[in-house]
Order: sequence, then structure tokens, then C-alpha cells
Amino acid sequence: MLDLYAFATPNSIKVPIALEELGLAYTLHGINVRKGEQKAPDFLALNPNGKVPVLVDAEAEGGRLVLTESAAILVYLAETTGRLLPASGTGRARVFEQLFFHASGLGPAFGQAGFFQRQAAEPQPLAIQRFSAEAERTLGMLDGTLAERPYVAGEAFSIADIAHFGWLWRREFAGVSLDAVPHVARWYAAMTSRPAVERAIARVNALVPAP
Amino acid sequence: MLDLYAFATPNSIKVPIALEELGLAYTLHGINVRKGEQKAPDFLALNPNGKVPVLVDAEAEGGRLVLTESAAILVYLAETTGRLLPASGTGRARVFEQLFFHASGLGPAFGQAGFFQRQAAEPQPLAIQRFSAEAERTLGMLDGTLAERPYVAGEAFSIADIAHFGWLWRREFAGVSLDAVPHVARWYAAMTSRPAVERAIARVNALVPAP
Repeated sequence: MLDLYAFATPNSIKVPIALEELGLAYTLHGINVRKGEQKAPDFLALNPNGKVPVLVDAEAEGGRLVLTESAAILVYLAETTGRLLPASGTGRARVFEQLFFHASGLGPAFGQAGFFQRQAAEPQPLAIQRFSAEAERTLGMLDGTLAERPYVAGEAFSIADIAHFGWLWRREFAGVSLDAVPHVARWYAAMTSRPAVERAIARVNALVPAP
Repeated sequence: MLDLYAFATPNSIKVPIALEELGLAYTLHGINVRKGEQKAPDFLALNPNGKVPVLVDAEAEGGRLVLTESAAILVYLAETTGRLLPASGTGRARVFEQLFFHASGLGPAFGQAGFFQRQAAEPQPLAIQRFSAEAERTLGMLDGTLAERPYVAGEAFSIADIAHFGWLWRREFAGVSLDAVPHVARWYAAMTSRPAVERAIARVNALVPAP
């Protein structure tokens, strides 16, 4: 049995997309980060880092597994099912290259760009400039990659596409558009037309209380 | 044949440590990032992202492989040798959890803390505060993990230890000390006493021209 603790966030969305793509049943538990529920004691007992998503696999090899870090969850799901991640060779290396490019590059740039544009207590102009430029630069890198391949890590859809989708789906927060990156735009349209992606978005959006 | 393009940087050091631990022969090519050599055309042809390290495996399965992203290189080396990464189960999931916690959390926090403390063209006090606090917070998370385990992902030394070592080795840039994190301090001392780590540090330090 799989339990997922998540919300409608760039990192959370990755896991329901993977679960829906893999056809795995799961119980979705909403953790409202706008209300700070990810810092509540019962959630911190699951993840001391105070972040969503968290996956709990009650029937994991070796006993109940509580797993944090969205990309680590993607790797876990891909490896336990044998899907969405090539078993060896260059194809596999490219998936990990893109997972870590997202985790250390594009993801933090989008997140910090949005924070300094929208949420900082006082304007920090050089920080806005630094992270906005880095968001555009990393997006341009991704566009160059997608100019050469249909999916971010090669010919086949993989967990690396799912990883990049989270922040592209929430790109408005970072002040980023797809106007100047036609290959990303083509890929993004293909991603949102996947039934599993549509179902995952509907499920996490339903966690957000009506205003 | 393995060729490594690297310098004495937090991300570069991970790869020679892994290569030395695994007993793999490699040719080390210095890319002096203080002189901007990572943005030179011949290097950008290897890695359009303009970052070290880059590993070139001339004899990879499927042909010559040019691989970027330090953690993706660690995964590649571990999987091609069958070492430093458990084959399945919770132990394997914990390695990926720590690799991604480093890539998306501790690493960016240390890097941005150092940038805003030392390199920003004008002071950005809220950015300094934000990233310095996040560097301390993520270091505290790691200390909590190492209070429960000898190595960052469990009972055994793994590529996750190598990943975290890079920024801990360069912690002064981020203004971070180990004074308040005794478990990290114990682990760091054990890491630096490993002969492979000593050899890797000596090799990358030899790339830095004398002042």
C-alpha cells in the first residue's frame, strides 16, 4: 500500500504523475503548505526536513519505507516496477544526468527566482537578477536538449521528463514563459496531453481549498 | 579509458574520490574555473552547461559517453562497478534520498551562501541571511542523520558520502563550521582519513597554479 503526502507544488506533482503513469494505486494525503502544515509535528515525524512530497510504502522490501526527496521517490518507483528508466547504458546515464540537472540547476533557479520576485520581505535587486537570469539560462539549456531529442533524456518518456515537468508547470511563479523556447513548448504540450498527467494534476489541484 | 575534466571545486572533488575508491585509472584534465576555462568554446563543446566535472568514458556500453552532473557520474561509476551503492531495498533508496538532498538542498544552500557573503557586487542582506540560515539548517539535518548512522545513507560508506563531502570540504566558502555539529565532524574526520580521499584531494589541489 502506497501513501503519498503532497500538495499542488512543483515537487509534489512529480510523484502522482509517476504513480498514475505506472498504474499504481495510492492514497493521497493533502499537506497544505500555504498553511504551514509541512512544519507541523506529525508531519515532521515523517520528514524532519519539513517538505513535501513523502511516500510511505508499507510493503517495501525490508519493511515499511518512508521516503523523501521527490526525485529519489521517482527512482524508487521506476526501479521497483522496472519502467520509465532504462536498465543500463547511455540511456540510463542520461536520465540521471537530467534528474540531477533539474535537482541542482533548473529547480533551485526557478524556486529562488520566484521567491525573490514575489516573497522577499524587501527587494533584493541583485538576487532577483541573479536567479531570474539563471532560470532563463537553465530553461535555454533544456530547450537545447529538447531540440535534439523528443524527451529530455532521449527517445523515450522517462522519470526525467516527470522531474522537469514540476517546475515547468509552475513556471509563472518564477516569472518564466515558454515564448522563446519552442522545443520546451512542444514537449510541455505533449506532457500535458498525457492522461496520467491530467489525472495527477486534477488530484493535487483538488487538495487546494476553494478561496 | 576514463578522462575527467575537473578542478579543485566542491562538485569536482566527488569524482576523483569515487575513482580512487573504486581503483579505476583515469586521466585528470584541469579546467581552471578561476580563469573561466569552463566557459571556453572547447569545454562548452563537452558540456554546454559550462560546469565541471565532466567524465568521458571512451569505452562505455554503446560507445563513447560524455557525462555531466557530478552525482550522475557517481551513480554511473557505482553501477558500472557494482560498488558503493546497494543493489536494492531501503539501503539503495537512502542513497538516492541523500544524493538528491545534497543536490537540491545542502549544495545550493552552501553555494549561494558563499556567493552572497563573498562575491555579490553589492550587499544583499536578506539573501545573505536566507542562504546562510539554509546552509546551517541543512547542515543540522545532516547532523541529525549522522547521529543515527555511521554513514549518511546507512551502515556502509556509499556514493552519498562522497556527494556530501564536496561542500563540507569547501565549507569555509559558505561561512560554515563544524563546531555545532559533532556527528558531521566525526564523519568528516573519518572521510578525510580515507586514503582514496587523501589521494583525490592531492590530485585536484595540484591543478591549482601556485599564486
